[in-house]
Amino acid sequence: MTETQAQSQSQSEGDSPSEQGRRPSRRALIGWGGAGLALGAVAAGGAMAMATGEDDTEASGADAGGAVEFHGAHQAGIATPVQDRLHFAAFDVKTDDRAEFVQMLKDWTAAARRMTAGKTVGEGAYGGLAEAPPDDTGEALGLKPSRLTLTIGFGPSLFEKFGLTDKRPAALVDLPKFPGDNLDRTRTGGDLCIQACADDPQVAVHAIRNLARIGFGKVAIRWSQLGFGKTSSTTPGSQTPRNLFGFKDGTRNIAGTETDRLKKFVWVGDGDTGAKDAWMSGGSYLVARRIRMNVETWDRTSLQEQEDVFGRDKGEGAPVGKAKEHDEPFLKAMKPDAHVRLAHPDANGGITILRRGYSFTDGTDGLGRLDAGLFFLAYQRDVRKGFIPLQRKLSAHDALNEYIQHVGSAVFAIPPGVRDANDWWGRTLLSEEA
Amino acid sequence: MTETQAQSQSQSEGDSPSEQGRRPSRRALIGWGGAGLALGAVAAGGAMAMATGEDDTEASGADAGGAVEFHGAHQAGIATPVQDRLHFAAFDVKTDDRAEFVQMLKDWTAAARRMTAGKTVGEGAYGGLAEAPPDDTGEALGLKPSRLTLTIGFGPSLFEKFGLTDKRPAALVDLPKFPGDNLDRTRTGGDLCIQACADDPQVAVHAIRNLARIGFGKVAIRWSQLGFGKTSSTTPGSQTPRNLFGFKDGTRNIAGTETDRLKKFVWVGDGDTGAKDAWMSGGSYLVARRIRMNVETWDRTSLQEQEDVFGRDKGEGAPVGKAKEHDEPFLKAMKPDAHVRLAHPDANGGITILRRGYSFTDGTDGLGRLDAGLFFLAYQRDVRKGFIPLQRKLSAHDALNEYIQHVGSAVFAIPPGVRDANDWWGRTLLSEEA
Repeated sequence: MTETQAQSQSQSEGDSPSEQGRRPSRRALIGWGGAGLALGAVAAGGAMAMATGEDDTEASGADAGGAVEFHGAHQAGIATPVQDRLHFAAFDVKTDDRAEFVQMLKDWTAAARRMTAGKTVGEGAYGGLAEAPPDDTGEALGLKPSRLTLTIGFGPSLFEKFGLTDKRPAALVDLPKFPGDNLDRTRTGGDLCIQACADDPQVAVHAIRNLARIGFGKVAIRWSQLGFGKTSSTTPGSQTPRNLFGFKDGTRNIAGTETDRLKKFVWVGDGDTGAKDAWMSGGSYLVARRIRMNVETWDRTSLQEQEDVFGRDKGEGAPVGKAKEHDEPFLKAMKPDAHVRLAHPDANGGITILRRGYSFTDGTDGLGRLDAGLFFLAYQRDVRKGFIPLQRKLSAHDALNEYIQHVGSAVFAIPPGVRDANDWWGRTLLSEEA
Repeated sequence: MTETQAQSQSQSEGDSPSEQGRRPSRRALIGWGGAGLALGAVAAGGAMAMATGEDDTEASGADAGGAVEFHGAHQAGIATPVQDRLHFAAFDVKTDDRAEFVQMLKDWTAAARRMTAGKTVGEGAYGGLAEAPPDDTGEALGLKPSRLTLTIGFGPSLFEKFGLTDKRPAALVDLPKFPGDNLDRTRTGGDLCIQACADDPQVAVHAIRNLARIGFGKVAIRWSQLGFGKTSSTTPGSQTPRNLFGFKDGTRNIAGTETDRLKKFVWVGDGDTGAKDAWMSGGSYLVARRIRMNVETWDRTSLQEQEDVFGRDKGEGAPVGKAKEHDEPFLKAMKPDAHVRLAHPDANGGITILRRGYSFTDGTDGLGRLDAGLFFLAYQRDVRKGFIPLQRKLSAHDALNEYIQHVGSAVFAIPPGVRDANDWWGRTLLSEEA
């Protein structure tokens, strides 16, 4: 059913169970006459959608401007084909009032449901009276849904609050200190996180900003990170994007369509959980690492050395001695400390994580060097069997370590998806009825 | 002539006068067999272009993935329809050797000519031997030209070097301190600037990084800025994008097709220059200001107040009392300190500047607030008759000042365009033959 049809139906039938259908989309609102015109939001939105012939359905994940379904057994933004841009924010909780925190999560869920569908946070153009602040900050008006996904996570420190100690999953361990770690406290940790991914950066920034606004007084942003470009691909057969060292990275990543591998490596299953963390079934665990890349040093390194470090050739991305990127690598042909040789599942008892990282360039450091690198995001079924053993090995041996440094770190439990219009982020953890 | 045709012709005729034609493009190179394959760069590039049927012509500015012509009477990136992303860098000169500086400008020009055409900086895949660092950092391999433009500017401080004192244009004045300025020295000034604009951020970042690499030892980045979203539009009739306050901004900007207004307000004419700055004919002047927007404060302001501050309604962007964005504003209907009323040319003796700014979000400040705002870029024929009188007025009276702060500032002389394959950035200023 299209937006327009949903609105018409809702108008003729009275309030429908789905309150989303009768609200105008961001696109439709653009046609508003604005000052001095007294059209109602629904009528104007509906008329505009019909006049332009545009169709803001929420189902078309294939359309670059389309909307990704918010509801499901798992949260969107994990197996979803990677979007072009990222705005990631870690929050600290400021309230001691559990009911207030729960209400905020419900408000966040309602806002996320609307924004991922390309709608404003509130009803009407800005959802309020002229005398009140707008319900939506407005900078995404006129922009497409842009495949926005919003994914929430809960950090270890959250479980020290609200009497949640005995709900902390065993798999949500604090990350150990790895060799070479040089973590900046102001880029590390967080009680909550929101990963916003979209094909338009303004849509991702708008989403984080509006959630922060809704959370004002209850939570505060601890740190945030913007990212661009895809550093991995969950779409099979597509070109693997290049990282800022100029190499293809993520060739053997898990694609969102690989149900079996997702089940095996990414989603928490019923069998994984006990009484304390049954609420995590259908969820996942996220490790976020800000990895600074010393691009100036790298750029003065010979091509041979660069290819030895990765264990691939730079142009095609083929493993050493092979012709094509997707050819099966022969690990023993690579140098012992080559990145691919060390990180390959065959060299790690099959360890596989779903990588979803983004490149970042945050201007320049005080020494005239680009403050650039990879914001590494990896989803897995159990951090103890995913990132930790892999990074223990890489941090000790990887030839890449000469050119990179981990400067930020966080780990989050990613709860299961929001099932329907009555469900909310964190219900399985925080509902008194659960 | 297409890339493929150029290559074929060049191969059959021997070296052609245009050395660009026989070099493979970024796209063509992607098909390389890589390790172990001994195909020559030209043959492989040509074969790939033919095999895919892709056509990397440089003329198609209308295609979002296309290339913008680098050569011309004026530099590209000013009247060019605004691209989606920005990477702007200010450099300080580190060498005292004029010949070395001139050679760097020539090397930069050659690299810019190739990168804007979607090619690697060097020949072949990375333009070097395995034993040497690659000539290109590689992260833009496989990406389209993405309408990349590279625009160079010379700051006032450059003219204190290399015996250029008597070539400093009268119009290149140091900006005065305006009321409310809170400039961060680390985001202010610079001997040189490069504005890189592209529809893909990785292409813009790649360009700045490679110019910095080529300039290593001769120049160093003083500060840099990434931007996203269009805050102004030089394409007539298109939707005016919204700034981070949620308002349409740049409604009445100069479009790249308005030859008369460009001549009147943007391009330095022969009649503007004297003996000392004849080298600037065909150029322009750029003012860059990092404007922090206090979005959290703004977001708690009523819709009425927000609309009063701008003098427009938020939804449509119509001036106070009007119905449509492009309706002629009736300035007296607005509050005396409304932004549009103060900034409108009719209230400023016709002052008009070409705005080309971008939104930025650089994470979070130490207080949990978004470090976000507008990186304002304005081109004009004479700073003394453009930005300075306008900003004197706005900084003293604009209602917006309660919500913004200017925290970075720079001004640059933008030399005329590079005419042809033998010309180079800065020739009219620095050539001994001039």
